[in-house]
Amino acid sequence: MSPRAFVPGHVTGFFSAHPHENPERAGSRGAGLALSDGVRVTVELADETVIRLNDRLVSMAAVEGVLDRLGVTAQIEAETPLPVSAGFGVSGASALGTALATNALTAEKRTENELVAIAHAAEVEAGTGLGDVVGQARGGVPIRLEPGAPPRGQFDGLPIPAPARSRVEYVTFGGLDTAEIIGGDTDRLSRAGENALTTLLERPTLDQFMAASRMFAHEAGLLTDRVEATIENVQEAGGEASMAMLGETVFALEDGLSAAGYDPTVCQITDGARIE
Amino acid sequence: MSPRAFVPGHVTGFFSAHPHENPERAGSRGAGLALSDGVRVTVELADETVIRLNDRLVSMAAVEGVLDRLGVTAQIEAETPLPVSAGFGVSGASALGTALATNALTAEKRTENELVAIAHAAEVEAGTGLGDVVGQARGGVPIRLEPGAPPRGQFDGLPIPAPARSRVEYVTFGGLDTAEIIGGDTDRLSRAGENALTTLLERPTLDQFMAASRMFAHEAGLLTDRVEATIENVQEAGGEASMAMLGETVFALEDGLSAAGYDPTVCQITDGARIE
Repeated sequence: MSPRAFVPGHVTGFFSAHPHENPERAGSRGAGLALSDGVRVTVELADETVIRLNDRLVSMAAVEGVLDRLGVTAQIEAETPLPVSAGFGVSGASALGTALATNALTAEKRTENELVAIAHAAEVEAGTGLGDVVGQARGGVPIRLEPGAPPRGQFDGLPIPAPARSRVEYVTFGGLDTAEIIGGDTDRLSRAGENALTTLLERPTLDQFMAASRMFAHEAGLLTDRVEATIENVQEAGGEASMAMLGETVFALEDGLSAAGYDPTVCQITDGARIE
Repeated sequence: MSPRAFVPGHVTGFFSAHPHENPERAGSRGAGLALSDGVRVTVELADETVIRLNDRLVSMAAVEGVLDRLGVTAQIEAETPLPVSAGFGVSGASALGTALATNALTAEKRTENELVAIAHAAEVEAGTGLGDVVGQARGGVPIRLEPGAPPRGQFDGLPIPAPARSRVEYVTFGGLDTAEIIGGDTDRLSRAGENALTTLLERPTLDQFMAASRMFAHEAGLLTDRVEATIENVQEAGGEASMAMLGETVFALEDGLSAAGYDPTVCQITDGARIE
């Protein structure tokens, strides 16, 4: 049987960018949520690498980078209900799932940290993310204290609330180009991200995470009109919402979006990546 | 509703002891398994601290140490199918579960690392464990690379195998006095533990973990006759077994004990501690 990995989706609420010539040391500081809507990745060793996402042939540089680092070619099947390029870390999840599932097939075995480092470095080199992979590996409400893959990266988290209170809702209006934003001038964004992290660590709760995320979205200048209006509508209905970095996506705690009259997708905060 | 935490049981296969005057920095290096047989802890704030384990009044220094550090008194109900003092980390699990569930009740909130550090320090001061709490927080197949609580302690893990291959069986013949062993001369034990960790990191697989654990149990001189005979019987039947540190307990991968004719308790490798 071909091994299959499940990797949670990951929305980042805020972040600062920390480039480094070594992709394992490059990354971001910030915080996010790991979501039960994620990516399932099945791997079969093959003479030539073929990657399918929801049954369509795709090119995913982060996945190819993982296979190169592991020294194999393989047929990769990734399946996800998540929208692509909308801030859910689909490329990072595909890379991490490929690393975990391939490890179950190869003669040489690696630890979780080594597999996370391989997926993180491939994602950074592809330019598609700076912090999703490490958040997806950890699960829950990951806080990235120091950038990069383990052992360099350092992590903490908020305690995951009880299942009855860990519901997350989201709506997506469209994509944003992650590579363009994190490849551009990130000074303003990173200052806002550092402020947001300080704010969260002063009071480490989910409500504070949402407030810090909104503050970041405003200060970093990333809000679109539709996203801003939706967040305001959720807040007026008494809920907590912010923008998924980087996508034109609004996520809300509990029933925040549906209480404000939207028809959101519903999922849960969940544990980290695993073999199924 | 009173918050409830689930904390997995944790069997250590091998370890080295690393004392330090600061209990957050004291700890162990080594590796183990987080088990789906664990401890459920319910907390209710109360005028006086009362601790019950499986409905019986008990005194648990590690749990009291957690409540002291959090500055509260509370009624603690811990329930577990695990045998006590038999190498499953029941005291560490009770301490960590108390920290997590109490955090859901108090006005001041803490991050996961802070709660793990509080439970780890209380457990070290109680003398009942050096590495269970951090392993129970992480879940899976935790490897303790550097001793102590986060951020000082550093961790890795083996990828958890698919559910169909993550079965663990155990039998317990009796308890061992953890405080006596880790409070005594640990030089020989720690040398054996460092060797075992090097062996595991050379080939990070579950089979290698079991082999390194058996090597440790022999070198450290901790095997009892009953434990040694049981491990041999499992190996003769083609299985993988070793001794839980520190208890007169044998644990085996998959159906190792039942295939050798024993009537073991069955559980699974599982994720880390969580609020239920």
